[in-house]
Amino acid sequence: MAHRGRRQQERRAAASVTTPMPEFDLIARIHARAASRGDVVLGIGDDAAILRLPPDRDLVVAMDTLNTGVHFPEDTAPADIGWKALAVNLSDMAAMAATPAWCTLSLSLPQSDAVWVDDFLDGFLALAAQHEVALVGGDTTRGPLSVCVTIHGLVEPRGALRRSGARVDDDIWVTGTLGDAAGALRQWQTGIAIDPVLRARLDRPTPRVAAGFALAGIAHACIDVSDGLLADLAHVCRASRVGAALDVDALPASDALRDAFDRETARALQSAGGDDYELCFTAPKTARISIESALFGCDVPATRIGRVTADAGLVVLHDADGGAWSPPRRGYEHFGG
Amino acid sequence: MAHRGRRQQERRAAASVTTPMPEFDLIARIHARAASRGDVVLGIGDDAAILRLPPDRDLVVAMDTLNTGVHFPEDTAPADIGWKALAVNLSDMAAMAATPAWCTLSLSLPQSDAVWVDDFLDGFLALAAQHEVALVGGDTTRGPLSVCVTIHGLVEPRGALRRSGARVDDDIWVTGTLGDAAGALRQWQTGIAIDPVLRARLDRPTPRVAAGFALAGIAHACIDVSDGLLADLAHVCRASRVGAALDVDALPASDALRDAFDRETARALQSAGGDDYELCFTAPKTARISIESALFGCDVPATRIGRVTADAGLVVLHDADGGAWSPPRRGYEHFGG
Repeated sequence: MAHRGRRQQERRAAASVTTPMPEFDLIARIHARAASRGDVVLGIGDDAAILRLPPDRDLVVAMDTLNTGVHFPEDTAPADIGWKALAVNLSDMAAMAATPAWCTLSLSLPQSDAVWVDDFLDGFLALAAQHEVALVGGDTTRGPLSVCVTIHGLVEPRGALRRSGARVDDDIWVTGTLGDAAGALRQWQTGIAIDPVLRARLDRPTPRVAAGFALAGIAHACIDVSDGLLADLAHVCRASRVGAALDVDALPASDALRDAFDRETARALQSAGGDDYELCFTAPKTARISIESALFGCDVPATRIGRVTADAGLVVLHDADGGAWSPPRRGYEHFGG
Repeated sequence: MAHRGRRQQERRAAASVTTPMPEFDLIARIHARAASRGDVVLGIGDDAAILRLPPDRDLVVAMDTLNTGVHFPEDTAPADIGWKALAVNLSDMAAMAATPAWCTLSLSLPQSDAVWVDDFLDGFLALAAQHEVALVGGDTTRGPLSVCVTIHGLVEPRGALRRSGARVDDDIWVTGTLGDAAGALRQWQTGIAIDPVLRARLDRPTPRVAAGFALAGIAHACIDVSDGLLADLAHVCRASRVGAALDVDALPASDALRDAFDRETARALQSAGGDDYELCFTAPKTARISIESALFGCDVPATRIGRVTADAGLVVLHDADGGAWSPPRRGYEHFGG
């Protein structure tokens, strides 16, 4: 860690010439709680971390930042911010079918607040432990609350799932349910009581790491649903030079979403709401049984929601009767969007 | 890149069902200008980047964030912010004797501003090109101006320089000159005209990558001077369980610093001012000729400024007459510190 956040304390320490450890030291606090792994040659505490990859693996790297008031409501609990900051990065590993290994964390805080950092670490490190991810470095700085994480994973050469692999006539699948996080946000924004099931989906998304890994070699293309199904599927279509036809009635919905919203609102949240961190992937029709079996093995449900078409760039939605369906504009919501 | 900064645009694109590319697209702008390397299997444009390491190298990772008003004055030119954001990370590679290879960039901006981003990239990519570093991913988000970079480098197993290797009776060396960046900051803070040579040192620090690499196998310990010589040397002393005795009159000063400040102020800036990004390293006395030769080869001057002592944790300064010297408190300055 680069210690930039404790410069003033360090300067004071240096000024006293005997350089005692500063009484309050965020980096030391983080270091003391971070677990390591056998492949971490050097972790927190130097100018950089040193990590050893197996010789037969490629490195997979993603980086995502969460800013207060933009990516999470200001009233989000520090532990949930910690969880989510890592979850959105793990979700990128899932979408690549990579096995996460190490992460770095840059934490900008308006002031040094040990209690806040401890709470933040409760969430961050709980999820890190679930995925055996070691926190190996980063920095703390003074500034508006912002959390930037870089995640590092491993994948076999040519083993990664990409956005660009979708082929015409592939099935389009999505894991879990859609619209829950956006539903919570809608309730938060309109000032009504937030359904706790929906709020948990917003605050503590489950990165589908095991599912992504299980889909390697089966799926043709994959992306995580962070910006909303339509936006993310559009990324896949652009990268693969294909189109998509979706059955809006097939989009999986949780009971909580169905209970909280009318059908049109729910459809809009499912098709355009972000922050679900489910996987949207395409695969040949012949792989249906393999997919169900692979995902059953990691206890992740998945639903077929449409098919890949040759109409490059065109995403068409229709309902069960075959009629075209367009999400209403008010469905296109994202916190701070 | 994870595209979080263009969610709204994407949602609008998706809403129109035909998903045209958004007119203004920061990620595409960055992608179009970023150079690649042969070991980049997959760069910007998917959920994560894929990178291939040589089988006989360890991965070295550092992450540093610059926040406006904390790490650079608000009037800093975007190109200088871009340069500095990468430079401070490259400096961490230098301190480890690692060869930088790839970086990711998370850019938080108050609003999408193509001109600003282009200017920023001018500085960022110019320095990246100098060091053959490929920008392979990251994200853009909405928020107060903040630049977070994760740098990835390569090092031979056991080839890295660490903070923990200093031994009693080692010489202590520093590259280049000290106090220039802090001198510029002092002038900026006191409202007087900033010397352009000093300002250039603040805005466009030169990461000592070649020097760090040349010192591998010769130096015992190394750190980059980001927080100020005393603070950074204290890190080395703590990690190595040793002390240091410095000759304050030996600290290298630029002509610009000498011209701009009285001797006491200059000493304070040299010993405690941050942001110089020179390397401070320790090496056995027997290595003096090797060091001069290695650094001559990369055209980087270095100065012996003291020696490592057995007084663990104690950094002592003395002047040429052997008298103890303590930097005045007003010398302990850093922007926003």
